[in-house]
Amino acid sequence: MAASKKTGGLAGVVAGETALCTVGKEGAGLTYRGYDIYDLAANARFEEVAYLLMHGALPTQAEFDAYVARLKTLRGLPDALKKVLEMVPAHAHPMDVLRTGVSMLGNLEPETDFSMQAEVADKLLACIPSMLLYWHRFHTDGKRIDVETDDDSVAGHFLHMLHDQSPSELHQRCLDTTLILYAEHEFNASTFTARVITGTLSDFHSAVTGAIGALRGPLHGGANEAAMELIQKFSSPDEATAGVLGMLERKEKIMGFGHRVYTTSDPRNSVNKKMSKQLAEEAGDTHLYDVSEAVETVMWEQKKLFANADFFAASVYHYMGIPTYLFTPIFVCSRITGWSAHIMEQRSNNKLIRPGADYTGPGLQTWVPIEQR
Amino acid sequence: MAASKKTGGLAGVVAGETALCTVGKEGAGLTYRGYDIYDLAANARFEEVAYLLMHGALPTQAEFDAYVARLKTLRGLPDALKKVLEMVPAHAHPMDVLRTGVSMLGNLEPETDFSMQAEVADKLLACIPSMLLYWHRFHTDGKRIDVETDDDSVAGHFLHMLHDQSPSELHQRCLDTTLILYAEHEFNASTFTARVITGTLSDFHSAVTGAIGALRGPLHGGANEAAMELIQKFSSPDEATAGVLGMLERKEKIMGFGHRVYTTSDPRNSVNKKMSKQLAEEAGDTHLYDVSEAVETVMWEQKKLFANADFFAASVYHYMGIPTYLFTPIFVCSRITGWSAHIMEQRSNNKLIRPGADYTGPGLQTWVPIEQR
Repeated sequence: MAASKKTGGLAGVVAGETALCTVGKEGAGLTYRGYDIYDLAANARFEEVAYLLMHGALPTQAEFDAYVARLKTLRGLPDALKKVLEMVPAHAHPMDVLRTGVSMLGNLEPETDFSMQAEVADKLLACIPSMLLYWHRFHTDGKRIDVETDDDSVAGHFLHMLHDQSPSELHQRCLDTTLILYAEHEFNASTFTARVITGTLSDFHSAVTGAIGALRGPLHGGANEAAMELIQKFSSPDEATAGVLGMLERKEKIMGFGHRVYTTSDPRNSVNKKMSKQLAEEAGDTHLYDVSEAVETVMWEQKKLFANADFFAASVYHYMGIPTYLFTPIFVCSRITGWSAHIMEQRSNNKLIRPGADYTGPGLQTWVPIEQR
Repeated sequence: MAASKKTGGLAGVVAGETALCTVGKEGAGLTYRGYDIYDLAANARFEEVAYLLMHGALPTQAEFDAYVARLKTLRGLPDALKKVLEMVPAHAHPMDVLRTGVSMLGNLEPETDFSMQAEVADKLLACIPSMLLYWHRFHTDGKRIDVETDDDSVAGHFLHMLHDQSPSELHQRCLDTTLILYAEHEFNASTFTARVITGTLSDFHSAVTGAIGALRGPLHGGANEAAMELIQKFSSPDEATAGVLGMLERKEKIMGFGHRVYTTSDPRNSVNKKMSKQLAEEAGDTHLYDVSEAVETVMWEQKKLFANADFFAASVYHYMGIPTYLFTPIFVCSRITGWSAHIMEQRSNNKLIRPGADYTGPGLQTWVPIEQR
C-alpha cells in the first residue's frame, strides 16, 4: 500500500529512456532533442520541428524542401475513409472522428512491416488535418471539400480547409507556432499510451489510435476547450476576477492551470500569451485577451497556480476563427509528430511495458454453486 | 540510467491498486476477485465471471438470468457500423476491424456521461462478437448475417455466427472455458493501456479501442496465432521435437512460452491442455495435440520454459474449426470484461497516469538557421 501511494499515477517513476525531450529541467523548461522550445518557437517552422523529432537533426534546406513537398503529396484520403467520415454523425466528438479515421486508415493502408514506419508517420502527419476538416465541412456546409490544397505548411493546409481560403500570414504563423509548442512532451499520458501499445509490437495505427483516445480526456488534451468555455462566460476582466474567486470558493476545478511536471511555470505559456495579445490587437478586440489575463492573475494570486500551455491557446485559436470543439484535434495535428518519434524510439529498444499492481481485494473465496447463493 | 534499467518496461513496479485479480501469488496462481481460476473454469459460466468482475460478486440465479437476457438484447449492430464493417477490406487484420468497429460505435452510441458506463460495458460484451463475425462472414461468404441469434451464451453466439449453426455442447463449453481463462489478468499491457487512457478521464470506447490496439501485438494477444503457425508446421511429434531444437539453436523466438509475471508455470495451461486433449479425442484426430505436447516437452527440457495460456489455446480453437486469424479477436471477446472492470475501477479512484523518463539525448543545442546548416 505504501509503495502504491508513493507511485500513484506513476508520478516521478521512470518508465523508460528517451532522447527526444526534457520537461522541467533547470535552465531550459522544455527542449526537443536539445533545442530550447523558445528557439524553436521563435525561429523554426513546424515541419522543421517534425523533421527534427522524427530524424534526429534539423534538416538542411534541401532536406526540408523535399520533406515539405512529400507531405503535400500525402494529404489525400482514400474513398472508403471519406465514406466512413460521412457516416460519422455531425454531433460526434471530433476526437472520436480522428480516432476512428486513423483506425480505418490502418485497415486501408496497413503497416504490414515496421520498415514502413516512416512512411506511415508522414502519411498521418499529412492527412490527419484532412480527415478532421473533411468531416467538419461535410457536416457543417454539406460540402465534400478537396483536401489536397497547395499550401506549403500543415498550418496553412488546416486553415485553408477550415475557412475555404488561404489564411493570412499572421494566422498561419501563429497556428504554426502553437503546433511547435504542442509537438512533444516526453512521457505525457497519450505518448505513454502510444509506447505501451507499441511495446507489444503492435502496429503504428494502433498506437496512434490509442494515443488519440488518451488525449481526448479533459485531464489531458481537453483542457484548452475547457479554458475556452471558462473565459467565454465573462463579459469583463472584473467579472472574470469575481467569477473565478467564486469558483475557487466553491472548490470548482479550473482548467488550464498547473501541471504534473512543471512546478513554477509552463514555458509554453508566455509564447501563447504574446500571440494572443498580438491577435487581439490585430482583430481590434482585446476582450478575450483581457479576460484571460484577469483569470491568470487571480489564479496566481489566490492559488499560486500558473497558466499552462492550454490556457492562452484557447484565445489564440478563437481569434483565428477556429470553433472550440476543434481545439483538441489541433493538438493531434501537432502531437502526431511526438507520438511518431516515440513509437520509433520504443521500437528501437523495445521491452513490453507491463507494471504490477497492489492487490486490495478479498482473500481466497470458496466457490458456491448458483443454486446456493 | 540505473533507475531506468531497474524499471525497464515497469517490471515489478507498482502502478496502482486493484481489487480485481491476483497473478502469480502463492497458493493460487490466478484469482478473480478472490476466486481461484480453477474453480471458475470448472464450475462457472463465462457470463457469471463477467458479472463477478463487473459487479463485485457472483450473481444469484435471478441476477444471472436477467444479465444473460439483457446481453441477448444488445447483440445488434447499428446500420452505419455494418456499412463500415463492409468497407473494411477482406484482407484486413481482424484486430484492426474490432479496433475500428468499437471506435465507430463510440461515435454512434457515445458515452456522454460516466453514469452510462455499465450500459456501455454490457453493449460491448454483447456486440463485439457480432462485429467480428458480421465482417468475417460478409467477406468470406458474401452474406449479411443476422447477428441477433437466440443463443444463451457469448460462446454459443460466437460459434453460431461463425458456423451458421448452433454449436455442440462440448464446443460451446470449451469456448466458454477459454473465455473464462482469458477474462482478466491484472495490469497486463492492454488493461494497463485502458487504465492510462481512462486516467485522462476519456470515454469508455477510447479506452477499449486503445486496449484492442495493445492486445493486437505479437508480444501480447497475438501469441496464440503464432503458436498455431508453429504447430501447423510439423507433421509428427518427432518432427516437432527436431524442429524446435533447430529453432532454439538458431535462437529463433518461440511464442506461447514463458511469462512476464509467472515464473514456474501458467495456471491456465493445464485447463487448456486438458480441453485440447478432449477435443482431439472427440475429433478422432490427436495429431495437433500430440505435436503440441512434444513442443511443450522440448521447451521445458531445453529451456525450462513452460507453456502459457496461449499455447494449447491454439489447438483448442483449431479443433472447433475457428480460423487462426480469429484467435486473437476471441481474446477481445473475453478480455472486454476485465478491461471494463478496470476502467470502472480506475474511474472510482482516478489519478492521471503520467510517468517520467530518463533523458538520454543531447545537451542544450544552439539554434542554427536553415541557410547555415
